[in-house]
Amino acid sequence: MTTVRDGDFVLLYLNEKKRWLVRVKEGMEFHTHRGIVKLGEIIGKPFGSYIRSSLDFEFHVLPPTIGDHIVNIRRPTQILYDKDIALVLFRLGLRSGSLVVEAGTGSGAMTAALANAVRPEGHVYSYEIRREFVEIATKNLTKMGLETYVTIRNNDAKLGFDEENVDAAFIDLEDPWEVIDPVHRVLKAGHLLASFSPTLNQVEKVVEKMREGYVDIDTVECLVRSIRVEKGKTRPRTLMIGHTGYLTFARKVLGRNTQAARESSS
Amino acid sequence: MTTVRDGDFVLLYLNEKKRWLVRVKEGMEFHTHRGIVKLGEIIGKPFGSYIRSSLDFEFHVLPPTIGDHIVNIRRPTQILYDKDIALVLFRLGLRSGSLVVEAGTGSGAMTAALANAVRPEGHVYSYEIRREFVEIATKNLTKMGLETYVTIRNNDAKLGFDEENVDAAFIDLEDPWEVIDPVHRVLKAGHLLASFSPTLNQVEKVVEKMREGYVDIDTVECLVRSIRVEKGKTRPRTLMIGHTGYLTFARKVLGRNTQAARESSS
Amino acid sequence: MTTVRDGDFVLLYLNEKKRWLVRVKEGMEFHTHRGIVKLGEIIGKPFGSYIRSSLDFEFHVLPPTIGDHIVNIRRPTQILYDKDIALVLFRLGLRSGSLVVEAGTGSGAMTAALANAVRPEGHVYSYEIRREFVEIATKNLTKMGLETYVTIRNNDAKLGFDEENVDAAFIDLEDPWEVIDPVHRVLKAGHLLASFSPTLNQVEKVVEKMREGYVDIDTVECLVRSIRVEKGKTRPRTLMIGHTGYLTFARKVLGRNTQAARESSS
Amino acid sequence: MTTVRDGDFVLLYLNEKKRWLVRVKEGMEFHTHRGIVKLGEIIGKPFGSYIRSSLDFEFHVLPPTIGDHIVNIRRPTQILYDKDIALVLFRLGLRSGSLVVEAGTGSGAMTAALANAVRPEGHVYSYEIRREFVEIATKNLTKMGLETYVTIRNNDAKLGFDEENVDAAFIDLEDPWEVIDPVHRVLKAGHLLASFSPTLNQVEKVVEKMREGYVDIDTVECLVRSIRVEKGKTRPRTLMIGHTGYLTFARKVLGRNTQAARESSS
Repeated sequence: MTTVRDGDFVLLYLNEKKRWLVRVKEGMEFHTHRGIVKLGEIIGKPFGSYIRSSLDFEFHVLPPTIGDHIVNIRRPTQILYDKDIALVLFRLGLRSGSLVVEAGTGSGAMTAALANAVRPEGHVYSYEIRREFVEIATKNLTKMGLETYVTIRNNDAKLGFDEENVDAAFIDLEDPWEVIDPVHRVLKAGHLLASFSPTLNQVEKVVEKMREGYVDIDTVECLVRSIRVEKGKTRPRTLMIGHTGYLTFARKVLGRNTQAARESSS
Repeated sequence: MTTVRDGDFVLLYLNEKKRWLVRVKEGMEFHTHRGIVKLGEIIGKPFGSYIRSSLDFEFHVLPPTIGDHIVNIRRPTQILYDKDIALVLFRLGLRSGSLVVEAGTGSGAMTAALANAVRPEGHVYSYEIRREFVEIATKNLTKMGLETYVTIRNNDAKLGFDEENVDAAFIDLEDPWEVIDPVHRVLKAGHLLASFSPTLNQVEKVVEKMREGYVDIDTVECLVRSIRVEKGKTRPRTLMIGHTGYLTFARKVLGRNTQAARESSS
Repeated sequence: MTTVRDGDFVLLYLNEKKRWLVRVKEGMEFHTHRGIVKLGEIIGKPFGSYIRSSLDFEFHVLPPTIGDHIVNIRRPTQILYDKDIALVLFRLGLRSGSLVVEAGTGSGAMTAALANAVRPEGHVYSYEIRREFVEIATKNLTKMGLETYVTIRNNDAKLGFDEENVDAAFIDLEDPWEVIDPVHRVLKAGHLLASFSPTLNQVEKVVEKMREGYVDIDTVECLVRSIRVEKGKTRPRTLMIGHTGYLTFARKVLGRNTQAARESSS
Repeated sequence: MTTVRDGDFVLLYLNEKKRWLVRVKEGMEFHTHRGIVKLGEIIGKPFGSYIRSSLDFEFHVLPPTIGDHIVNIRRPTQILYDKDIALVLFRLGLRSGSLVVEAGTGSGAMTAALANAVRPEGHVYSYEIRREFVEIATKNLTKMGLETYVTIRNNDAKLGFDEENVDAAFIDLEDPWEVIDPVHRVLKAGHLLASFSPTLNQVEKVVEKMREGYVDIDTVECLVRSIRVEKGKTRPRTLMIGHTGYLTFARKVLGRNTQAARESSS
């Protein structure tokens, strides 16, 4: 049975709507609308148990997943949802040992997911031109203990990547078409890149660029509906996230793709 | 540059609608409606290059991803889509070293995805009562080179799992509620299980059962829309997969969950 | 050119997020966060023109549609969305002259839509057991000038309808299966009924009941996504209504339906 | 009880997947994979009853709705679905007496729906430049008995409409932006137009044009999911129509819209 140690991150779970990712620290208190939780009391407790707040509410003490960490990342940037992250990780075929380049670190949310997927043998090289984001992302990755698996470069990916022969690439930029050629130069032949864009205008441009050196170009949008399950009253929830962005996947080929025309048919 | 060797699996990619997963074998031919591909000619070619068929069509020679393999699994059973597989892998937080139990091996599609996610350090223990599926799944996993990371047990998961302290659990059974307690006995406290069911009737029953020993019970359905991208004519494709099934996630807690009532509020 | 008269309802349109349905009254003021609108000043203005508020904002003066009226109905009850209303009106084939029975008047939103569709030659007979809703709905219908086309009966539809040979029926009750037989007795043979239910549990029950005397039973859910259109940045809006309810349509047949089994196949 | 007469259209309903819209004619036979139906035998039967085919299958004899007619229209053109038609009719606020202009008659499917909604007091003026479609649509409308309520003009709507002071407008053209100004000249101030387009590229252009003289511009897409209802096994159907097109609604205002900028905010 794993027990909580001083310094561990825990997910304090009150109910389906309220949960907090907290670092346990002897002598510290955590204040909520349902009372105060003395964090020191959690130390030595087994994960999966609960603790009572000063107002006598039960908070379950859970080990956070990579998803919990990512949801809690401080982000001045756009949110990436787990549905999109998950599909990228799976389609790129990432696993321990994979080398990945990322264009657009942002707050490091996707970087963390990529790093978690390729550790311990792989590595993520992430490019970000805005210095303040390099710092935010570095802090976020360190908090999650993932900094060993990531190198953030304060460079412009459009000017080229320093790596070679990488297994996969992920792009989250406003003008993703600018890095399609740079990715082509460093991605292993036959391997995949994924690009995330909120608008179809961006998708059109990036796909047009991809057609020059990639095949199996596939754009999808992923929607997740949450269901309220209650015996005899089960129904989808009223509000849902209607849109985050489009994901475009493509596989690098060698030489110019002479089948571009055929690709474009419905 | 990685080149194709005799015995390798390759994805022969003709266009966005036609592709084949083929094992390369000296002296063998592969027949398509676009001509014959001599498989021996592919040996020694770099991945990402193309080969011409007897009818002079170009087939790109691509390294298959785990997703390509899974799509091509021979399956008398229901199909699992990559959107669902991906979300399960990510939410369960799987990575190299994870130990997973699976109830309902079926053709081994999800088993393969789980194995790929936890290798090389982890392991999947998959339970299947129908002997013929044990054989089918074993064959499929061997073909993908994943058999080392999987133990298929021809036992009934409802009677209990032989493992202990596993990191995650996945259930794909018609009556998933029957294994919720057995999973509880072997899953690490605070860790997640995921259950896949085509109908809300099943979801209601399994969630009711989960409330006895799990929190953060979350049922979602994931929809993926494919977009036809063409300059000035971009639009979602006319036909889409409207439904595969519902995914229910939950985290095991210790002791009886006394907050069940609070969970059920919208 | 139609001009606004004292007593008219107008839609004061500020922007895509802010609009108000207001009754014009000489000497009255309408207060908003963008200033005060003197309603008397609108009298004599043409519809489609605008008026300036005290804070110098332009408010467009528009003629309200039936949809605007329905959205603005004071409703202690569940909301019906235009997507659902529209599909019911169209599939029921309503037009001037149709006779309709409704079980469950509620606030009169759907009643108003039905009345608008069948006027001036048709009529709606709406049943509601809760006296307070009879009053609310009557007020709402009068406000819209539709009271002539509706008879609200403070009776229990489950006990039977007083009408005969009606062209269509609409049910919005928690236990719709209770009025399937009563509807069968008064609906013209071959004609349609529609039932609205938030949960699939209700749908299962009502469909099972319908199979005894109806064919072409069809359950759908209708989703509407709103798109934010901006040159080069067009995308679906982030938040959407993920669920309102399911609509079930069916056509009455004479005699017992002996093909029930065939109907249930996928 | 209404009975079938010689010359009537009936819907021969076999099961949820198979139905035919047929004109009853003494002495004629209707051949199906489930046997021959002697149409003369239907004459005098009540609607809602059934008839047996030569292979002893029951075919229900149902009165067709406007929706049944529209689905059965012979169409060389793109399909309009009832979800889209319904939303247009409702949002435009059409009812007996409304005058409507339509740009792009096509096969007359939407024309028929518009005509049905405005009859008997209203009228539809539909513009179509392709002579062959004028003929197809005329035939289709006559078959449905709606020709009295429609005037099809073999003119180019871009050059202007001959009508004045119409209550609503519907556009289904490849280049809808070309008729936004012509519609503005004939539509009553404050009233609505609706435009249907398969792609967001078209939507962007038409919305940009609308901003010059319309407010409350609203683009939506409507999705309908069909549910397979079976006790204990209820679930959405596997295949669905993922896309038909986008609907854009707008209300004409007088004078130039000076709030264009405000409109474009998310």
